[in-house]
Amino acid sequence: MQNRVLIKNLKEYIDSEVLVAGWINVRRDHGKLIFLDIRDGSGIVQAVVLPDKKDILSTAEKLRPEWVVEIKAKVNRRPEKMINAEILNGDIELEILGVEVVSEADELPFEKDVEVNIDTYLDNMPFTLRSEKTRAIFKVQSEIVGEYRRTLADRSFIEYQSPKLVGDDAEGGGNVFKVDYFNDKTAFLATSPQLYKQIMVGVYEKVFTTSTVFRAEKHSTTRHINEYTSLDAELGFIKDHNDVLIELIKTIRSILSHVADKCQDELKVLNTTLPKLPQDIPVMKLREVQELIKKETGEDCTGEPDLEPSHERWICKYALEKFGSDFVAVTHYPVSKRPFYTYEDEDDLSFTKSFDLLCRGVEITTGGQRINNHDQLVDKIKEKGLDPKSFSFYLQAFKYGMPPHGGWGMGLERLTQKFLDLDNVKKATLFPREINRIDSLLSK
Amino acid sequence: MQNRVLIKNLKEYIDSEVLVAGWINVRRDHGKLIFLDIRDGSGIVQAVVLPDKKDILSTAEKLRPEWVVEIKAKVNRRPEKMINAEILNGDIELEILGVEVVSEADELPFEKDVEVNIDTYLDNMPFTLRSEKTRAIFKVQSEIVGEYRRTLADRSFIEYQSPKLVGDDAEGGGNVFKVDYFNDKTAFLATSPQLYKQIMVGVYEKVFTTSTVFRAEKHSTTRHINEYTSLDAELGFIKDHNDVLIELIKTIRSILSHVADKCQDELKVLNTTLPKLPQDIPVMKLREVQELIKKETGEDCTGEPDLEPSHERWICKYALEKFGSDFVAVTHYPVSKRPFYTYEDEDDLSFTKSFDLLCRGVEITTGGQRINNHDQLVDKIKEKGLDPKSFSFYLQAFKYGMPPHGGWGMGLERLTQKFLDLDNVKKATLFPREINRIDSLLSK
Repeated sequence: MQNRVLIKNLKEYIDSEVLVAGWINVRRDHGKLIFLDIRDGSGIVQAVVLPDKKDILSTAEKLRPEWVVEIKAKVNRRPEKMINAEILNGDIELEILGVEVVSEADELPFEKDVEVNIDTYLDNMPFTLRSEKTRAIFKVQSEIVGEYRRTLADRSFIEYQSPKLVGDDAEGGGNVFKVDYFNDKTAFLATSPQLYKQIMVGVYEKVFTTSTVFRAEKHSTTRHINEYTSLDAELGFIKDHNDVLIELIKTIRSILSHVADKCQDELKVLNTTLPKLPQDIPVMKLREVQELIKKETGEDCTGEPDLEPSHERWICKYALEKFGSDFVAVTHYPVSKRPFYTYEDEDDLSFTKSFDLLCRGVEITTGGQRINNHDQLVDKIKEKGLDPKSFSFYLQAFKYGMPPHGGWGMGLERLTQKFLDLDNVKKATLFPREINRIDSLLSK
Repeated sequence: MQNRVLIKNLKEYIDSEVLVAGWINVRRDHGKLIFLDIRDGSGIVQAVVLPDKKDILSTAEKLRPEWVVEIKAKVNRRPEKMINAEILNGDIELEILGVEVVSEADELPFEKDVEVNIDTYLDNMPFTLRSEKTRAIFKVQSEIVGEYRRTLADRSFIEYQSPKLVGDDAEGGGNVFKVDYFNDKTAFLATSPQLYKQIMVGVYEKVFTTSTVFRAEKHSTTRHINEYTSLDAELGFIKDHNDVLIELIKTIRSILSHVADKCQDELKVLNTTLPKLPQDIPVMKLREVQELIKKETGEDCTGEPDLEPSHERWICKYALEKFGSDFVAVTHYPVSKRPFYTYEDEDDLSFTKSFDLLCRGVEITTGGQRINNHDQLVDKIKEKGLDPKSFSFYLQAFKYGMPPHGGWGMGLERLTQKFLDLDNVKKATLFPREINRIDSLLSK
């Protein structure tokens, strides 16, 4: 659109005439004045139609929220006492000299920025995504994933594209969607890029991918969705899982500092603060956490192979109070609870050199060292009751020399949820897929 | 790994002792000397075991390609006449003081850098990806997709995550994979992020996504794969499809210049040059191209709704000879050949404000303006024999005010193929999915 000025740049045009295009965010009639908040991709500005502009008033009276308009206007400085320093363009106002309707809108199903229940929110996403809060959430999400890639690329990790159609339910978890492939064959949707990123370590040593993964899990909770974006990385020539954890924390630190810098307005809109990440975070073995819970609360979960959600919340609260950290790493989950490729600790047999990173009460990352010896890997596949033949493609990487390596995976949506302290992962998921819903509720 | 020096940084350690870790790339025995090329994620360096190091020689004699080793060595400057200025580390050599085998490798199925037929190449990908050429191709690919996102984010496009599981065969093309969803429902794999990125224009005005898409197309050619990464963008408040084309060319120019800058070594390895993109590229209507073909070659394809592959090659050759451009845009494909959401040109009825961008003989991008009026869109859906009810979620965006908008989609793999002038898109696809193959050939 020729000569259009973006709303965030209006300050540079004080006392000039400009062309602005966007959506009507709000219309307020004040006696003979009409105020319009105009929104474009870059921001929001207040505009006013003065009482002497009869023609414009008659058009402006018809305008309703979400109508798309083009406006000719003069950019005025606001009088001192009307300045709102807290918001973009709080010190200017557009005086409207002409309005053209580009696209009309139906009456809204409900007010744009009102809180509605989750099903109504999801049913109306093409509309509800336009609310100030939702726009803020997914703006932050775009910065998280952008910085994730940037910081890893800066540290010489190579991005690769991981396939989604896979030939087997590789990890044998059973939570896998089936796809009708060609010639009556069945394919499966990848539950993680794990096997491919290990192959890629053989190629580039340090790799990452941001890829959609699919989990055919039937539970419907505030923490689970059936399709999500997984932020993965894998690196070679590590000493053990601690090297992986160091790279992960470096990555998260970089994301947090980037979001704090780039998303000040969004954090204000969401009225939230980012999680605290001190220089050193607490790192504890699973059994140490369990002993601590027993000692501090009296509840005996020692010997359990995993932490219950309530235990995850407890240890996070403890880490925050004791170490000022919203993050805590729990290591050494038992071999029985981890996938076949997980590295067993020679000094702590039947426990693994793996970790979960918890943040604000839930696990946000799983990672660790992997087995890099071909024959050991084959043995572990068999021990898990899986067939090495199903893994012959993957196993090639290990036939031809693999260094000690490890990595992590974390869900972008859950990361967004926890960074912004949202109560439901679906609020941090664009178009969440769940058991009864793909965009709309699936009819019975 | 403590104190490890990356191979690309060895120059900073001349006359010092270093620890290097990596793969044996090549072993060459020269009488009493053994030369080893060592490869890590950052580069390759030549190392030598001198005849007086008996212990080391006896280990070095066993080393074979792809074994993983740790090496203690002194970094020596090469004698003047041994310097190879063309390659990384061509002016230094490691004098090996100690070797430790980290991981052995089987005998290779064939030499790593030898050309093999495409099926052998694909069958052995965990190994063949380690060749110098393949590493160069996918390094370039990582830079293409990285710069694609960077340049758009710099121009205020917001990244969003587009869903892959969709509720309907939305565009009615039939080339869609079916997924067994929950409770005996069927879901489908997205053939493009189109409908979602249009919804997102209502939210952010300018958006992009890099997302896997799936095409259940049965043909097996050098140009098609069944799963690929689509580089999509969509922007609001355009005048027409030319604004979209301008943004697209800006994006491609930015990628080409980034790759030229960052991938000099890779382009040398691949012995190729990037396509020529002059300041202005030729833009012609489909019918103009057809008239030109008739006039210049005598072949009459006027009236055809599309270009045949041979015509695409012809017009690309013409554009290169006549305008010095490896790119040519063809606009105004007929309404009948374009999806329902394509904008019809009011001044050229039954033709669309859409384009294909061709590069080096094939289409690499499809784009154009979209319909932004709700009722027009419903009519077009019906005209294509589709059911507006299937689109009710998508249509919400158009009920609530949509500006004139448009965008594009292009396959990362084909883009990589054409930029590097490779003969088969599978050579630019990590783990290509095809009718008879998911990693390995699917058994009958």
